[in-house]
Amino acid sequence: MNAEIIAVGSEMLTEDKVDTNSLYLTGQLNLLGVEVVQKTIVGDDRARLTAVISDALKRSEIVILSGGLGPTEDDVTRDAVASALGRGQEFRQDVCDVIAARFARMQRKMAEINKRQASVIDGADVLPNDRGTAPGQWIVSGGRIVALLPGPPKELKAMFELQCLPRLREILPSVVIRTVHMRVAGMGESDVDQLVAPVYTKYTNPVTTILAGAGDIQLHLRARCGTVQEADALLAEVADQIVAILGNRIYTRTGQLLEEAVLSLLIERGETVSVAESCTGGLLAQRLTATPGSSKAFLGGFITYTEKMKATVLGVPTEMLETEGAVSEPVARAMANGARDRVGSTYALSVTGFAGPDGGTESNPLGTVYVGLAHPDGCEVQRVRYLGDRARVRMLASQAALDMLRLRLIAR
Amino acid sequence: MNAEIIAVGSEMLTEDKVDTNSLYLTGQLNLLGVEVVQKTIVGDDRARLTAVISDALKRSEIVILSGGLGPTEDDVTRDAVASALGRGQEFRQDVCDVIAARFARMQRKMAEINKRQASVIDGADVLPNDRGTAPGQWIVSGGRIVALLPGPPKELKAMFELQCLPRLREILPSVVIRTVHMRVAGMGESDVDQLVAPVYTKYTNPVTTILAGAGDIQLHLRARCGTVQEADALLAEVADQIVAILGNRIYTRTGQLLEEAVLSLLIERGETVSVAESCTGGLLAQRLTATPGSSKAFLGGFITYTEKMKATVLGVPTEMLETEGAVSEPVARAMANGARDRVGSTYALSVTGFAGPDGGTESNPLGTVYVGLAHPDGCEVQRVRYLGDRARVRMLASQAALDMLRLRLIAR
Repeated sequence: MNAEIIAVGSEMLTEDKVDTNSLYLTGQLNLLGVEVVQKTIVGDDRARLTAVISDALKRSEIVILSGGLGPTEDDVTRDAVASALGRGQEFRQDVCDVIAARFARMQRKMAEINKRQASVIDGADVLPNDRGTAPGQWIVSGGRIVALLPGPPKELKAMFELQCLPRLREILPSVVIRTVHMRVAGMGESDVDQLVAPVYTKYTNPVTTILAGAGDIQLHLRARCGTVQEADALLAEVADQIVAILGNRIYTRTGQLLEEAVLSLLIERGETVSVAESCTGGLLAQRLTATPGSSKAFLGGFITYTEKMKATVLGVPTEMLETEGAVSEPVARAMANGARDRVGSTYALSVTGFAGPDGGTESNPLGTVYVGLAHPDGCEVQRVRYLGDRARVRMLASQAALDMLRLRLIAR
Repeated sequence: MNAEIIAVGSEMLTEDKVDTNSLYLTGQLNLLGVEVVQKTIVGDDRARLTAVISDALKRSEIVILSGGLGPTEDDVTRDAVASALGRGQEFRQDVCDVIAARFARMQRKMAEINKRQASVIDGADVLPNDRGTAPGQWIVSGGRIVALLPGPPKELKAMFELQCLPRLREILPSVVIRTVHMRVAGMGESDVDQLVAPVYTKYTNPVTTILAGAGDIQLHLRARCGTVQEADALLAEVADQIVAILGNRIYTRTGQLLEEAVLSLLIERGETVSVAESCTGGLLAQRLTATPGSSKAFLGGFITYTEKMKATVLGVPTEMLETEGAVSEPVARAMANGARDRVGSTYALSVTGFAGPDGGTESNPLGTVYVGLAHPDGCEVQRVRYLGDRARVRMLASQAALDMLRLRLIAR
């Protein structure tokens, strides 16, 4: 079956509004085996919207509209669908009562204008909205399905899940979707793809999608089968081959973030970490502490943005800073050791580098970063160099630091 | 004049792809006084795309297509436009030579398949692509304009700017657009709107748009006039009234971020800042250091996530932590003073609170945050309470800290 999605609202045609409802709806429909073949975004224009709906009904079995169900003259979705289907509308007192009751619960009186929202297309099911005033509508007409959903994403999602999904499941053949969501740190997208493409291209089920972020590659495997057992067996077959190739570069099979994976490993072992940051300026700590429960393993850290602070707060020798420079292997080492000593954590990560847009020397050009890891048996330092702007270098450096710790934790 | 935008490509119909090209194009077209009345996203389907283009040409004067200009069988935009216009196509050796030369510069041989990209619709202008292989096309037909642009945003933007803008400017009446981009900290969207709506609703030119972020409200004023003088006078008229109402809650009239505004004020005065963070866990420092050149005013900071670190690193008395709790007014004060003393900065900001999802006491429930500012004349502490998840509480707390410093800086 094919579906089309129509987003209604002049505000959806401005330069800063993106139709995210259609992404959610696409995901949900794909899970049911329904393909989305066209998406349209149209303003609050009765004639234009009516034409768009008529065209969509000629091409596709399922047409889902979002928005335009409000109480004002600008809200034309109900009228346009009725026109396109050649049906009438009727004011429904029971629907109006539900809207009025919602206003009453908010200690407000329903305005006269809201009665428009109780207008129901002939033959439509009314879809209750437990998050807003606008009820939805569900119409089956000549083998076609038309759904009218509210525009606010929270209302749309709840209504789709509670009202539309059960109705669609009754009509569509049952399928089971199971997924594996691997993430890989420390490799580029093309390197990952080159290694694993020979595996995943052999399969059309599961479908494999690769998404690339800064220093973080996601591999989504999605199997669609008749039973859970069948889907899981297929996923295991493909995932095992990918794991055999990428090994411990894969830091999760459940979609965790790298900082979450690192915190889990630390908490499991009853160990702790602290940080000493220069060029990342708090980003590394911020990522770790963004995770709820991070205080079980993250103790704290130092942002030493000046040479003086590196010396006074972390005990980096002034002489070393002068002779080696703040962006150097020995300084990264002294920062990590300094943090670990001062905090008393099992591990300490340090980052010092040139994130740009200015800075850099002949031997350590812009984008050079030293990442240190102090641990109970000593301290390692890694030198990396990244291309890209300040934000990218900082993100990649924090990723390298977290991955260094992860690799040490899983090596033991 | 009205325009429609058609994004071509089956990958644009997946659950994680958003058509951002159309946002850029909308912004550019609006500046020329052209309204975008419909957007369509369609897969690599020849018949469907041809129908979409035909329909668009019936409704709108300008039709811009993005994507589907590659060399493969899946790339159907050229064929679909030719069909919709009832025109033929011709292989152009001169266009092919440009593509081949591009491959040669990358030390690669052009594949036979790329010749498809040198197929030009009868009567079309070829739009050179200096960022990729796919040339664009520009067709004027019966008072309609059809532009075929490549899908990759970098290629599309460069081609639109260099090739389409000059062509559109020749046709369209000249307009001048001038903008003012104010930002407000420390107020909610509805409070801001309630105060300034009586002003901006009096004007249809400039158009005022309000965008709300966490603790940060943006007011965009856009005037469209025949001359710069006229536009600036209109903007000043409205902006002055808004400033008279919101006063120093407005931290920028040029769209700066709050952290950028604070850093500018510090650098102007030759003063410096450090931080002591608990619940924000590095976010405050990260925001300040994300700004290039921040090292001129930001010296460093401490992330004291445990009581022990608050005591040993910042000198918060252990007794105080025990009797008052780590989330308290005196601890915020001691943290700020501790950081300022240790770093020797002009100012120090501190943050301690319950960001959630767990934590909180009867007197300081979840979402309570104390924000401290140590300065040459003493130390102030502000207690705030936020609703929302961990990420939101952390963002709002960092915003409150930055704004506290900003208000002190502009008060002198």
